[in-house]
Amino acid sequence: MGRGHVTAGGEAGPRPCDDDRPGREGRATALLPEQIVRLEDDAVVILDQRLLPGETVERRCRTSAEVADAIATLAVRGAPAIGIAAAYGLALAAVQGEDLDVAYATLAAARPTAVNLRWALDEMRHDPTPQRAGDLHAAEVERCRQMAGHAADLVPPGSSVLTHCNAGGLATGGYGSAVGAIRAAWERGLVERVWVDETRPLLQGARLTAFELEALGIPQAVVVDGAAAFLMAAGDVDVVITGADRIAANGDTANKIGTYGLAVLAHHHRIPFVVVAPTSTLDPAAASGADIPIEERDGAEITARFPARNPAFDVTPAALIAAIVTEVGVHRAPFAVSLPTPARAA
Amino acid sequence: MGRGHVTAGGEAGPRPCDDDRPGREGRATALLPEQIVRLEDDAVVILDQRLLPGETVERRCRTSAEVADAIATLAVRGAPAIGIAAAYGLALAAVQGEDLDVAYATLAAARPTAVNLRWALDEMRHDPTPQRAGDLHAAEVERCRQMAGHAADLVPPGSSVLTHCNAGGLATGGYGSAVGAIRAAWERGLVERVWVDETRPLLQGARLTAFELEALGIPQAVVVDGAAAFLMAAGDVDVVITGADRIAANGDTANKIGTYGLAVLAHHHRIPFVVVAPTSTLDPAAASGADIPIEERDGAEITARFPARNPAFDVTPAALIAAIVTEVGVHRAPFAVSLPTPARAA
Repeated sequence: MGRGHVTAGGEAGPRPCDDDRPGREGRATALLPEQIVRLEDDAVVILDQRLLPGETVERRCRTSAEVADAIATLAVRGAPAIGIAAAYGLALAAVQGEDLDVAYATLAAARPTAVNLRWALDEMRHDPTPQRAGDLHAAEVERCRQMAGHAADLVPPGSSVLTHCNAGGLATGGYGSAVGAIRAAWERGLVERVWVDETRPLLQGARLTAFELEALGIPQAVVVDGAAAFLMAAGDVDVVITGADRIAANGDTANKIGTYGLAVLAHHHRIPFVVVAPTSTLDPAAASGADIPIEERDGAEITARFPARNPAFDVTPAALIAAIVTEVGVHRAPFAVSLPTPARAA
Repeated sequence: MGRGHVTAGGEAGPRPCDDDRPGREGRATALLPEQIVRLEDDAVVILDQRLLPGETVERRCRTSAEVADAIATLAVRGAPAIGIAAAYGLALAAVQGEDLDVAYATLAAARPTAVNLRWALDEMRHDPTPQRAGDLHAAEVERCRQMAGHAADLVPPGSSVLTHCNAGGLATGGYGSAVGAIRAAWERGLVERVWVDETRPLLQGARLTAFELEALGIPQAVVVDGAAAFLMAAGDVDVVITGADRIAANGDTANKIGTYGLAVLAHHHRIPFVVVAPTSTLDPAAASGADIPIEERDGAEITARFPARNPAFDVTPAALIAAIVTEVGVHRAPFAVSLPTPARAA
């Protein structure tokens, strides 16, 4: 793949990893799960995803506030991954002797939409140790593997899969939710190809998902977000699979801006729309999508030249979702009954 | 507005123009219609829209083949505008003593989807004079003004209007189709604000439509294409107005990729979806959208790093279109009956 490798702050960079994926023609250069965020003695080390795929740069966060800043500025992003980063951040705060209430509040406020952030902090609160953060990280990756297996059951043979944003190993600390499902389905021989929404404004699809799928050797093409309906009308999409940032008790699902539109389009074309997320993404305290805060980011992410509005997420009503897949299994409507409770301590 | 002004080839650049728009708070810096393309003694001079809004550069095309290249490479774009450019190109070919059959064929092949290209060439074929090309240009602008008036009748007071790509003066040789309709509705006090789809991959919305609306003083915000459904669900869109590249006999309408998805989303949210186009965009020879060729452009327009697929247009079925507005008036389903015949000689 020949990607540049730069390490900030004099740290040893991520190591190439052995890929445990079975055969097919993959070029085994996937990032290790542990590489996107890890705890060292005096810092949480975060792979800066804003620079991928061109550069591999690590950012050393020496306080919980620096971890919160890395989350707020999207150096680490993806609902499960920011939960993991926050967990390491709270462990770092404990090691460094920071005020833990302040550290908790600072980390929790870094981004509003993904509930995993608060979930992970609550899991850590009464045992803010490096060991526990590592266990939480490992458990999240294991959840991904489990839900990938469940979700692959929903993929018909010969499928063209459309996905949005990046819900891969980079977003989850390893393996991936939506990309994990695609990977598991690919390993079973069910996937013909993947359409990758480029996902404006920050191009997580064109930069990160394409990067991961290339590493996995899965056939793909990046498309502009506006092309999804065209592909659906042409019969070129068999299933839409996305991740989630927060799932309300009734199944309404917040995810990257553009996801809701995809669900409407899938519904119009009678294509199943599947959400894959660990139970750490469930928020039983939110009765419906109306209770989920939507982050509005700086319009300059779109254009610095003209006024812009930049909502970062939208909410897909449960009625448009064919299935929500967690590590527990496949859940269908009525979601208020079928959704499990969030995972507790690893 | 302070836009850069560079003129290639030693030519005098576009002159600032007087804006004939009535009052309100507009900053009157709109480009003159005549400025985007004009015929001189030895060249068709084309404003290079790929560089807007940052730079104002003119490109001198000294043969019809150079005009065709300017059309193919999107220096001039927009269905009516490429028809006008082609008309000037054929007039230039006649003045220069080129083989007119070759010139016709070269120009007609420059881009496949917009029917205005061939329409304009057919209008010019038996009288390929500068005078006639100028008349055709003036008539297209006059059509824009007429249809803008008709379309403004469809805009409720206090409307938030969403538009896609650029169907403004830059796309039509003056005044604009969809943007013309917005302008006319604004002048009647009906428009609250405009949501401008940025329109990936080439950002005609974020670059060109935002530029025109700024010049007209119409309140606007650029949004990513994926945000349209979010805005609709929030009740923040009252009408969607777009242009067209080709309209089949049954009303199926080809336009910039992403338009079809918008129409599905508008339908789902019970928002009227209105197409504004001159009769030069009608193609009675195409029975339905299935007869309209869709241009597939180089994937490198999206990403040079990963495989990409880049359809440039899509087709919106007539069933999703509330009204098609031409200079003749407002046409509603069944379009096979209601659509007029294309305009003939100016």
